[in-house]
Amino acid sequence: MNEFSVIDQYFKRQALSREDVVYGIGDDAACVRVPAGMDLFISTDTLVSDVHFSSDWDPFDIAYKAVMVNVSDITAMAANPAWLSLALSMPTSDESWLKRFSKGLHKALGVFGISLIGGDTTQGPLTITISIHGLAPVGQGVRRKGAKASDIIWVSGDLGGAALALSSLKPNNIAKKDMSILLEKLKHPTPKVNLVPILQTYATSAIDISDGLAQDLNHICIASQVAARLSLQSIPLHPLLTKYQADKAIELALHGGDDYELCFTTPAESLDAFRQACAKSNVTCHPIGIMEDGRGLLGVDKDDKTIKIAPKGYQHFQA
Amino acid sequence: MNEFSVIDQYFKRQALSREDVVYGIGDDAACVRVPAGMDLFISTDTLVSDVHFSSDWDPFDIAYKAVMVNVSDITAMAANPAWLSLALSMPTSDESWLKRFSKGLHKALGVFGISLIGGDTTQGPLTITISIHGLAPVGQGVRRKGAKASDIIWVSGDLGGAALALSSLKPNNIAKKDMSILLEKLKHPTPKVNLVPILQTYATSAIDISDGLAQDLNHICIASQVAARLSLQSIPLHPLLTKYQADKAIELALHGGDDYELCFTTPAESLDAFRQACAKSNVTCHPIGIMEDGRGLLGVDKDDKTIKIAPKGYQHFQA
Repeated sequence: MNEFSVIDQYFKRQALSREDVVYGIGDDAACVRVPAGMDLFISTDTLVSDVHFSSDWDPFDIAYKAVMVNVSDITAMAANPAWLSLALSMPTSDESWLKRFSKGLHKALGVFGISLIGGDTTQGPLTITISIHGLAPVGQGVRRKGAKASDIIWVSGDLGGAALALSSLKPNNIAKKDMSILLEKLKHPTPKVNLVPILQTYATSAIDISDGLAQDLNHICIASQVAARLSLQSIPLHPLLTKYQADKAIELALHGGDDYELCFTTPAESLDAFRQACAKSNVTCHPIGIMEDGRGLLGVDKDDKTIKIAPKGYQHFQA
Repeated sequence: MNEFSVIDQYFKRQALSREDVVYGIGDDAACVRVPAGMDLFISTDTLVSDVHFSSDWDPFDIAYKAVMVNVSDITAMAANPAWLSLALSMPTSDESWLKRFSKGLHKALGVFGISLIGGDTTQGPLTITISIHGLAPVGQGVRRKGAKASDIIWVSGDLGGAALALSSLKPNNIAKKDMSILLEKLKHPTPKVNLVPILQTYATSAIDISDGLAQDLNHICIASQVAARLSLQSIPLHPLLTKYQADKAIELALHGGDDYELCFTTPAESLDAFRQACAKSNVTCHPIGIMEDGRGLLGVDKDDKTIKIAPKGYQHFQA
């Protein structure tokens, strides 16, 4: 199989069509038309084999996760995902691998109606870079900057499940059934796309907390020039985290990553309206603290003691 | 240096601002505004170390070339480059390497006023993936499909220089001065962005011939359902190609790649107007043949003999 038949068979033929795609794969560039009144959001994420995923994963899962990791970034801006380009480097053109990979890719794209508009295949170490494009009405995107003192801090779901899965990849005493729940969480994250319209209306700041709550929330604090005071007992923990690692649960929820939930802030005065909007959309968000003047992260523990939280999490290059 | 200081120091601070960039690096996605009446073009290209460039190249050249390779794809669509995302995987965070790399990156971006709007840095084997975005008035993009029988086939400049440089990287008898001319051609290609408005007006099809004239022109033939008849003597050869490899010159010009020139077609009836437009913009293009009914590539040699040309060129995965 050469490069062109790979692209044709596994990527081009199965690409989903959208009205705003004038033409996709097959030319030197794709052509799209941004609807009037919309801002365009662009994000790029690379997944490297044995850094972001294990090379022995089912290629279906590698592709599925790569898409969702990128969708999560667009969701964090309060935009809806629209189009995606895939750059795939692989050591050899292995048909059975490609078949599974493209199955996972198209499955993930189908979940949110995203159109694959192009990319590149090259020979090299297994690496996946995705550029994703999203749309939101002009001016309604949400940034890291914008949180104010007294804003409520929210997370969009349970934390620590993926970190537990990662820390449990070595042999241990986690029950098989539980392990498969954790691996599902790690390999098939579902970004909270149904939160997007609610964020557009209510959020003052937002971030994807894939590198860990503490590190990513600290980015909001720096960009917004505020401090975060977290109620540690309010942080929603994955049930299996409390079952298997109760003593490390808060630590993993704060500093572990890979959950693809969002952290965002809303003004205290819109609390009721926000809660109603969430209920109407069947979305569950958890308040975990409030913003205040200052900088950095503080945690209030069960004994009402205030402690400093280090803004550490996942970093690709350690200092 | 951690990931965030790398991005801040070498990429964010120096990013060129454009009016249509609402915000660039620093959030989970960049936000841009496509001007009314414009189509958006998106292309992605990956450069892998020791496949697309040599790991011992000056990082300045690696970055410079990576940008230009991508600009060439946008130019081939008759669009103007606007914004670029960079995904950089590197084994270690080497400051002196990054300094040179970012210098080459910003230098290349500056040539065409392109704004760096985001990207990702990860630890892994040296790989550069760029997603580039370009703009053209609605409906004025040019595709591979659209050439008609009797259209004239053009190339935008001398061919074979980069292929000669590549074939000459082993010790040989090329004079030092000539070798530096060839390496300049290989490492610092200049896509023909000033051809863009002319292509919008006159071209019926176009392609970037970075994988070699024969292979890429054949993509036009397949997409447009025509055959190409080339006058082999009309193919413009790099002067050093005739000096050093006269016997292989046509071969390298047809099947060698990496020149980042364009091949495109224009209707015979607009020949005079097209030539005038080129003269006015100080652009030199070379007619190399005509399209006719049928499929595939034919070459007419100096003795007026017609030969078949194999559509082979650079492929990332050989059959």
